[in-house]
Amino acid sequence: MAERLIEKIGFPSDLRRLRLTELPVLAAEIRNDMLDTVSKTGGHLASSLGAVELAIAIHYTFNTPTDMVVWDVGHQTYAHKMLTGRHRNFSSLRQLGGLSGFPNKDESPEYDLFTSGHSSASISTALGLVLARDLKGGRNKVVAVIGDAALAGGMAFEALNHAGHERKDIVVVLNDNERSISPSVGALSKYLNRIMTNPAYNKIRTDVERVLKRIPRFGFRAYRAARKLEEGLKNLLVPGMLFEEMGFRYFGPIDGHNIAQLVSTFRNLMPLNEPILIHVVTKKGKGYKFAEERPADFHGTGPFDLDTGIKIDEKKLATFTEAFGEKIIELAEKDPRIVAVTAAMLDGTGLNKFAQVFPTRFFDVGIAEEHAIGFSAGLARGGFKPVIAIYSTFLQRGYDQIIHDVCLQNLPAVLCLDRAGIAGEDGPTHHGAFDITYLRHIPNLVFMAPSTPQELKSMLEFAVSVNKPVAIRYPKGSVPVLKEPSQAIGMGKAEILKTGSDIAIISIGSMVQASLEIANILSKKKINATVVNARFIKPIDEDMLANICSSVKKIVTIEDGVLEGGFGSAVLEFIERTGIKGIRVRRIGLPDKFIEHGKRPELFLKYNLTPDAICDVIIREVI
Amino acid sequence: MAERLIEKIGFPSDLRRLRLTELPVLAAEIRNDMLDTVSKTGGHLASSLGAVELAIAIHYTFNTPTDMVVWDVGHQTYAHKMLTGRHRNFSSLRQLGGLSGFPNKDESPEYDLFTSGHSSASISTALGLVLARDLKGGRNKVVAVIGDAALAGGMAFEALNHAGHERKDIVVVLNDNERSISPSVGALSKYLNRIMTNPAYNKIRTDVERVLKRIPRFGFRAYRAARKLEEGLKNLLVPGMLFEEMGFRYFGPIDGHNIAQLVSTFRNLMPLNEPILIHVVTKKGKGYKFAEERPADFHGTGPFDLDTGIKIDEKKLATFTEAFGEKIIELAEKDPRIVAVTAAMLDGTGLNKFAQVFPTRFFDVGIAEEHAIGFSAGLARGGFKPVIAIYSTFLQRGYDQIIHDVCLQNLPAVLCLDRAGIAGEDGPTHHGAFDITYLRHIPNLVFMAPSTPQELKSMLEFAVSVNKPVAIRYPKGSVPVLKEPSQAIGMGKAEILKTGSDIAIISIGSMVQASLEIANILSKKKINATVVNARFIKPIDEDMLANICSSVKKIVTIEDGVLEGGFGSAVLEFIERTGIKGIRVRRIGLPDKFIEHGKRPELFLKYNLTPDAICDVIIREVI
Repeated sequence: MAERLIEKIGFPSDLRRLRLTELPVLAAEIRNDMLDTVSKTGGHLASSLGAVELAIAIHYTFNTPTDMVVWDVGHQTYAHKMLTGRHRNFSSLRQLGGLSGFPNKDESPEYDLFTSGHSSASISTALGLVLARDLKGGRNKVVAVIGDAALAGGMAFEALNHAGHERKDIVVVLNDNERSISPSVGALSKYLNRIMTNPAYNKIRTDVERVLKRIPRFGFRAYRAARKLEEGLKNLLVPGMLFEEMGFRYFGPIDGHNIAQLVSTFRNLMPLNEPILIHVVTKKGKGYKFAEERPADFHGTGPFDLDTGIKIDEKKLATFTEAFGEKIIELAEKDPRIVAVTAAMLDGTGLNKFAQVFPTRFFDVGIAEEHAIGFSAGLARGGFKPVIAIYSTFLQRGYDQIIHDVCLQNLPAVLCLDRAGIAGEDGPTHHGAFDITYLRHIPNLVFMAPSTPQELKSMLEFAVSVNKPVAIRYPKGSVPVLKEPSQAIGMGKAEILKTGSDIAIISIGSMVQASLEIANILSKKKINATVVNARFIKPIDEDMLANICSSVKKIVTIEDGVLEGGFGSAVLEFIERTGIKGIRVRRIGLPDKFIEHGKRPELFLKYNLTPDAICDVIIREVI
Repeated sequence: MAERLIEKIGFPSDLRRLRLTELPVLAAEIRNDMLDTVSKTGGHLASSLGAVELAIAIHYTFNTPTDMVVWDVGHQTYAHKMLTGRHRNFSSLRQLGGLSGFPNKDESPEYDLFTSGHSSASISTALGLVLARDLKGGRNKVVAVIGDAALAGGMAFEALNHAGHERKDIVVVLNDNERSISPSVGALSKYLNRIMTNPAYNKIRTDVERVLKRIPRFGFRAYRAARKLEEGLKNLLVPGMLFEEMGFRYFGPIDGHNIAQLVSTFRNLMPLNEPILIHVVTKKGKGYKFAEERPADFHGTGPFDLDTGIKIDEKKLATFTEAFGEKIIELAEKDPRIVAVTAAMLDGTGLNKFAQVFPTRFFDVGIAEEHAIGFSAGLARGGFKPVIAIYSTFLQRGYDQIIHDVCLQNLPAVLCLDRAGIAGEDGPTHHGAFDITYLRHIPNLVFMAPSTPQELKSMLEFAVSVNKPVAIRYPKGSVPVLKEPSQAIGMGKAEILKTGSDIAIISIGSMVQASLEIANILSKKKINATVVNARFIKPIDEDMLANICSSVKKIVTIEDGVLEGGFGSAVLEFIERTGIKGIRVRRIGLPDKFIEHGKRPELFLKYNLTPDAICDVIIREVI
């Protein structure tokens, strides 16, 4: 058997030695290896399958890494990784210490210009590279590859607006797979669809261009007249007017799985040095039947059987996400004022069933977290109780709106932060490490974290009843449950799960059940611990804290977020505020660094957040 | 003299009893009273002068408050305030306890639906009101009034995209005054200008519409054909295609100072129940010569002489903003890698001179904080040292980008947060109360606050030298300087300004010089205080803290930000981390509430942040 093409490719310079006709073979090899690895490791399969030809064509045509490519979001980049020095190591994908599932500057500073996992940033960062190039007098191309869903994010629009104004040499490749994680929403999506489903556009356009080419362009007046005619006709006939109005030249739509067409398009447009947008149409999941049929299932997937496409069952506990999805339906059945909002995270947040049961009361606004919060503020002002489900890390995009549009107005919106704490294999761009700090200081906000999925249900019921802004944070997946907390939630009230006089463990959210295990371990060493399920980050239970301080002088706080300004700091602040003396507090949580990717248990182990590791700290430093 | 019209108007229902011909007289009265008050109180004059006829026409035509109007940003709303029950009280504008300079829900829950001072949110919140209305089966109109500069903000685009998708009855009034605070930037701005400067558009459009009206619309095929023709011709002829492509029907441009035309347009469009955008052209500063000529000067102005337009000189100390503006030029002269970025805050941040001296190295990206940060990340990745100057409160919009695009990449971008702490008369939407907390927890970030304008210069020089992400926060205006700090800045090093053994006052930024005064007051009572200029919020000076803890057991921290997770909490966290015992800490800062508007000294007094008030706390609680 001849050596496979992919084996010959260390870097894009090798790729560029292949003949154009060999590239489809290479694409098949890349798909094969991608499926092989991702079926074992899990990962963002569907998007990356859809971008194989695109990645090949880009690296084949552009002179990377001198020409710079910024991949938006980054979950479309597996082929890009294989072509840029990481094919041999590809099976380590998403493993602790292995390849990241996203572009990662530490992994490949030359080819991954930015570590990137949040959507809609690529045009901004690419435009920065463009202006930097021009200030230095460079001549390299800069390409941003952005998905149709990401293009609907406000940051992308801000960048288009600026780029169209600057009129510099920048290439935006719109990778349009007609759906983001959930099917695309928004007028922009409809607009792109209109372009693609109208074949007449291209026929007419070709005719017009042929006519225009015959008009002699010598002489200023003739040129002016021709341009005027061209622009008028373009208004009538050319798709992509929206982009043209923004100052971009639009080309497309182009079949994103036809490498030859992609390569010739890129080559033809290379001499242009103005903002151009190339509209490439791809199919999410391309080349793997099950992913093509069910792209949302294979957006982010766990391991699966390659032959059947069936997910390999992990021993599954009931998850927080599931509990959320069930409870919100139950609550909505009782209270017609409850509506649900998400930002392109229908499945991930567990709202899919709600969307089916209450289609008119469900709003997926697309990748638009700022608007999701502002829109919810409007719904609340209009008399409804919006429940907004967004991943903790993505809600960072709505930070200002939470302050300005929700909490300043003191409106009854409920923010549900899924994937709080360590998110796992998606790594530093996806961990919800900061939310306790970035929400705790906001006036008027009530802020909770449930210790079990069951408790999340109780908290959600409580949240929609208090007529104030509420946030609830909870982790991905589940936790082993040692003791289910009581169902009654009282405003700002913690729950004592166990009493002991030697030390008090005050934990929040996903670390509470682990604290019971810690207490068990400690009890074997004759250390009796009080275990508190704090429940509320804000308002924090001051009565509980005062009692603890008067009965137990040693306190350990445990949280799965950064320690700076976190839950433990709220405990320190209470002690400072009250002036209580002689209390030793030890805070346990995430360190002041960006946490890498890896399985959640591996990362808990690495960062000393397992019950055993925490016991060691308690015995060594506190007792 | 006959009673003035404005005196008869308690609420819009009174306005609606006037004859159309009386409205220009009313407009003149409103302008007169507005100038009278603002020349004494200061305020956002130019925008509000430009929106007088618009406010009158809206309340005259729409059935407010049943019909709901959301005013974007809110500094265009003085006329709106006078028409909605607040004319008599208008002279209290921006005074402590008086009328807010922005829409304020507590001031007028019916007419000010949202307290609003951040840009680009109105379409989002209005769309929420629209969906709430439709779920309830209401029939009221919902109007968002948004400026051209605000429309360039990503949040506004996200909302347009969603509104165009939902296709509900919503009215967006684009108040286009051709410039935001700084002259508008961006392709959108050019686009709007193109629409306005082409009178042929409207002539042709009228002709086309007349022809189209003659086509009989009975029968489906005829209708289809007519629609198709109409759409084709619109593509060619109608301005506002960008909005049409987004799913809005576009009408305009309309003269925003012609009340009769505004009223008839609003009335004509009232029966439509789909997304419509009405493009209204106004003149910033309209009706006051000096404001028309120098709209930027009268965007936010202090008191001025009405006859000459000359600002009434306040006794002025050198401001932090000025120091920033001077120093960045000096640094840029030495280092060609330094570039400056702002988000529509050219004058306010002191970058105007830089923009003149280094036009190619200056970027005003418009009201687009998300993009400003992402773009700067690209510039940094491309080898430059971007210095980004944005108000503390507006930088909240870029929170995620600071984490994801700058600090995760560990790029050398310098964030300069003007208006940190209490901002004064602009009130709760403009105070920079949260930045210490929302930045302190971000890995890789170096975070400083200067105590004097001179020290800001030293810090800026240090910041551009460290090759890491840096943030510097500083207040509006100035502080009385008792002792200028040393010029040498060392990474993570505080400065001891005075030593004393009874208590240590560790202050950050604008509170440092006040702490010297506090020490003076204390010394008269035989209390000797150490005074520390902390300089670094992150990394905090652990050596200094360890020394203080071993020498002085009583610590007071002072900051002009919220206490939750703030600078004082960083000190608490240090003590917890090191396990040092027996230290009494008392943190002084802003309370956990949204701070109202008022003069800075008045607010400092109210919130017990004056030297005398702090001394009282120290004597009562710490000594």
